Amino acid sequence: MPELRLNLVTREWVIIATERAKRPMDFKNSVDKPAVPPYLKTCPFCPGNEYRTPQEHYRLPFDGNWKIRVVDNKYPALSPGEKKRVSDGYKRSISGIGVHEVIVENPIHNISTALMDVRDIEDIFRVYKARFIDAHKDPTVEHVILFKNHGESAGTTLEHTHSQLVGTPVVPIQIRDRVQAALHYFDDTGECMICSILKREKEEGARVIIDTGHFLTFVPYAALSPFHTWIFPKRHSAVFSDITEEEIRDIAYHLKVLLSKFHYGLEDPDYNYVIRSSRPQDRGNEYCHWYLSIVPRLTKTAGFELGSGMFINTVVPEKSAEFLKGVRPG
Amino acid sequence: MPELRLNLVTREWVIIATERAKRPMDFKNSVDKPAVPPYLKTCPFCPGNEYRTPQEHYRLPFDGNWKIRVVDNKYPALSPGEKKRVSDGYKRSISGIGVHEVIVENPIHNISTALMDVRDIEDIFRVYKARFIDAHKDPTVEHVILFKNHGESAGTTLEHTHSQLVGTPVVPIQIRDRVQAALHYFDDTGECMICSILKREKEEGARVIIDTGHFLTFVPYAALSPFHTWIFPKRHSAVFSDITEEEIRDIAYHLKVLLSKFHYGLEDPDYNYVIRSSRPQDRGNEYCHWYLSIVPRLTKTAGFELGSGMFINTVVPEKSAEFLKGVRPG
Repeated sequence: MPELRLNLVTREWVIIATERAKRPMDFKNSVDKPAVPPYLKTCPFCPGNEYRTPQEHYRLPFDGNWKIRVVDNKYPALSPGEKKRVSDGYKRSISGIGVHEVIVENPIHNISTALMDVRDIEDIFRVYKARFIDAHKDPTVEHVILFKNHGESAGTTLEHTHSQLVGTPVVPIQIRDRVQAALHYFDDTGECMICSILKREKEEGARVIIDTGHFLTFVPYAALSPFHTWIFPKRHSAVFSDITEEEIRDIAYHLKVLLSKFHYGLEDPDYNYVIRSSRPQDRGNEYCHWYLSIVPRLTKTAGFELGSGMFINTVVPEKSAEFLKGVRPG
Repeated sequence: MPELRLNLVTREWVIIATERAKRPMDFKNSVDKPAVPPYLKTCPFCPGNEYRTPQEHYRLPFDGNWKIRVVDNKYPALSPGEKKRVSDGYKRSISGIGVHEVIVENPIHNISTALMDVRDIEDIFRVYKARFIDAHKDPTVEHVILFKNHGESAGTTLEHTHSQLVGTPVVPIQIRDRVQAALHYFDDTGECMICSILKREKEEGARVIIDTGHFLTFVPYAALSPFHTWIFPKRHSAVFSDITEEEIRDIAYHLKVLLSKFHYGLEDPDYNYVIRSSRPQDRGNEYCHWYLSIVPRLTKTAGFELGSGMFINTVVPEKSAEFLKGVRPG
């Protein structure tokens, strides 16, 4: 009998459809991806082509050969300007202002996060932190999303490894609704929802993949798709940019191990990850708690998901976790 | 300058990203789809293979050769059973009960809705109506979604033209939130939001594609993607199954013309459509109003959409409407 599970964070019910269940290993990428060279003359993100990108905002290290560069998106969804709101009957609009940056994660064209040295991944998080703080200095920015699209089906158009930061002039309703759910949970129980899920997931253990001093990586109880994974910081903290150096080293390790498990166990699937966080000015918030969510793109959403907002997951979350636990990276 | 527009129905902001704008015609399918035969011996939905489908619930006509058949989904996301709820700390589950039917829309294997006779499409709506009413008779069913997936990127696994009905044992949070937004609108203005949008869209005209006695087909002001289209019934009605025979003939015409415009103007793009409706027992509801939403699958969602719930539409809605208006079907 299939089962519906409630995702407490999103308030969405997920259908765990065992009738159409696949074994985790059936999700392995069966197509060989074409070979990609380590350097591509025509790639705007490859060293030597820096002139082909729009304004640079940041580089690491600051002198010498760069390891990470942050530039404006050449085709920005949002760009700096004056905030104008129009409210005309049923029409509400805001000028498309905000921030849209690209984080070029590595000079090597064909390296993927799964294959990077863990110290290179630490640097990516250091840059995320710096740009997250900086984006919030723009008074028109209300919300910042840090995310990565890996692979074509995850929405990448440029194959050189990169992630993106978007600062929007409004708070998306999805975020408002989740904050509201977290607030109700806090009012009901006196606890942060994420802290409480962390404690219970650790106790139960059935969905835990990696457990270290500062982070817990696990498949959510109501995972929305096969191998959907959350990385939760153990210390209560509403704001991603309050991450410490020690925590950066730990989350880089988690991401490296998890993505290596994806890479070797599922044959380099396409995926998206996103960092969900409150704004620096909401640092004192007791019911919000930042985290990182990773969704491999192994299934397609269809009319049912569009029409209901519900997801159908064909792999039982405990089985996803068990499979990933068993993969030996490298 | 790009613009953000608020979708009043979903409360989601959509980024209309003119910086990365494409011309509508750039979305034309450039790949020739492989030829599909009108009959396939191995297809469980082709005539003669009726024994290969699970239980049949309905057929039209009731005797002689069928034009439409309704059967249980062979790999149901939900199936009949006893409703059991478990609430254990942060874990909430319900047994995966409900209804999951497949509506085989036509005996011909390779016909698509765009190419059907309008009278065949009327019959599809007659069957939708009958099955919608029947599904709500099941006391475990709280919400019913009628939808169609056309093409592989829209989530189809069987190419023989069909649509689906899912009856869920919970009301999805997405639906609850939209009903709430409609209620607030009604309390604010004394009007049904959909009736009010209808009136304004008709007056303005810039996004209207088809306008007849009973329905208005238009690209929403805050369309979430290129060519996203709504078909609104002009008569206030919360419940899809209260559709009259005259309205069935009119909506079949709208769907036929719109899908033909997709077929010829955009070279048979993949798409999903979904009927959004209240339950028959909520017939008297003054603020809910059923409608049909169609989303061609021409763009990919990525980490930004996942992390924010916001969409980026690269075609200005007025341009989508203008393009579709100009396509002469057939």
